[in-house]
Amino acid sequence: MIRILVTNDDGHFSSGIHALATALRDVGEVVIVAPQTEASAVGHALTLRRPLRVERISEDVFAVDGTPTDCVNIAIDQILTHKPDIIVSGINKGFNIGDDVTYSGTVAGALEGALLGFPAIAVSQQFTRDTFDFTAAAAFAAQMTAAVLASPLPPRSFLNINVPGGAIQGVKITVQARRNHITKVAQRLDPRQRPYFWIEEASDEWDFVENSDHNAVKNGFISVTPLQPDLTDHAILERVSALVSK
Amino acid sequence: MIRILVTNDDGHFSSGIHALATALRDVGEVVIVAPQTEASAVGHALTLRRPLRVERISEDVFAVDGTPTDCVNIAIDQILTHKPDIIVSGINKGFNIGDDVTYSGTVAGALEGALLGFPAIAVSQQFTRDTFDFTAAAAFAAQMTAAVLASPLPPRSFLNINVPGGAIQGVKITVQARRNHITKVAQRLDPRQRPYFWIEEASDEWDFVENSDHNAVKNGFISVTPLQPDLTDHAILERVSALVSK
Repeated sequence: MIRILVTNDDGHFSSGIHALATALRDVGEVVIVAPQTEASAVGHALTLRRPLRVERISEDVFAVDGTPTDCVNIAIDQILTHKPDIIVSGINKGFNIGDDVTYSGTVAGALEGALLGFPAIAVSQQFTRDTFDFTAAAAFAAQMTAAVLASPLPPRSFLNINVPGGAIQGVKITVQARRNHITKVAQRLDPRQRPYFWIEEASDEWDFVENSDHNAVKNGFISVTPLQPDLTDHAILERVSALVSK
Repeated sequence: MIRILVTNDDGHFSSGIHALATALRDVGEVVIVAPQTEASAVGHALTLRRPLRVERISEDVFAVDGTPTDCVNIAIDQILTHKPDIIVSGINKGFNIGDDVTYSGTVAGALEGALLGFPAIAVSQQFTRDTFDFTAAAAFAAQMTAAVLASPLPPRSFLNINVPGGAIQGVKITVQARRNHITKVAQRLDPRQRPYFWIEEASDEWDFVENSDHNAVKNGFISVTPLQPDLTDHAILERVSALVSK
């Protein structure tokens, strides 16, 4: 019996997580443990300053008043009766590509799974103002879940999948793109004329990299990026050594 | 005139950030923009669902009701009169080593600086139940700030500095350690006999790596790890390619 833990950052009620769970039930037994409210862009946050509550929404759906990282920990240590064989996070409403993977709650759910020693996959789909059609993303997520279970990745490696809207041109194995970030912050005045600030959408200037996740989805391909948790810049260790000994 | 933006995740009132700012005033002009309340383990979170408020605490200290990542963006786009030459985040009360860098708000402040194109440094010090003595960490942070300004690192690379308590044995250039995570979640009952859950301290089983940050601080050395934002597992791109084409 294959056991699959499903989480996300859009919340347990999201149509994306239920489309994912439905497709994954062809692969194994699914339990959803997901945030009670939307937790987008929460990064790899862990709630340490307050306790967490768990609500059982239905037979196999649990809501946690915390982050995706909290959900994975509580699921494994307190909710699930058996350890999961794999953790799948998504389907997020909106891409998680390029540097944005470092902000993503969806990716953080899979990262936490990988750090805890489980195979893990994050799945995101292009944002649309219309109703989301998760058919392609859910089917591909189920296919990759079965593939990873059959041929496990090295420990601590996990997959970040992004699926474009419209006709799918194929699948590309990709690297994380670089975006030239220029986040804008807008000032507004409240009814009492006191300022408040909104973080606006970052601008979209991407470095061109042939095999990047951004380039894949831009051209209609599903992007599959293998990720891992080591941020060390191994290439500059000697250079930094020179800096210190000066 | 060197301009330095200082942030942290312990909050603008933390003795760690003021020790850092004091030492950095020998290098340049310092402005502090930091969270209003403690924001530890928030990861690289960005506040997108609500607006943010900024409070001017004193001439060169501003508090933001958000995360370190929010602070860096608001500082650069709305508070500072000139772009900073470098962003320094800390001094955190407690190490940010190994995989924990992915949860750290302190590291996220520096990461955000690097993504926005600025030189950046994160500084953390060993936790103690006694009063913190930031003398060594603050002096070393100022030294490295001057060194990075004199010999800039490649774009998007930044430094993660961890300083042990007690006598300092020297400085090691390190890589991010691996910890075998077993997060524990404890259940308690509230006065109305309903369960709630605390995420406990993760256990401390580290893989031994000679040149790791964990090994350095354990032996009394200051650890300097160069970090960068690309999580791609470049080593397994071909293996994942085989997985998809099966």
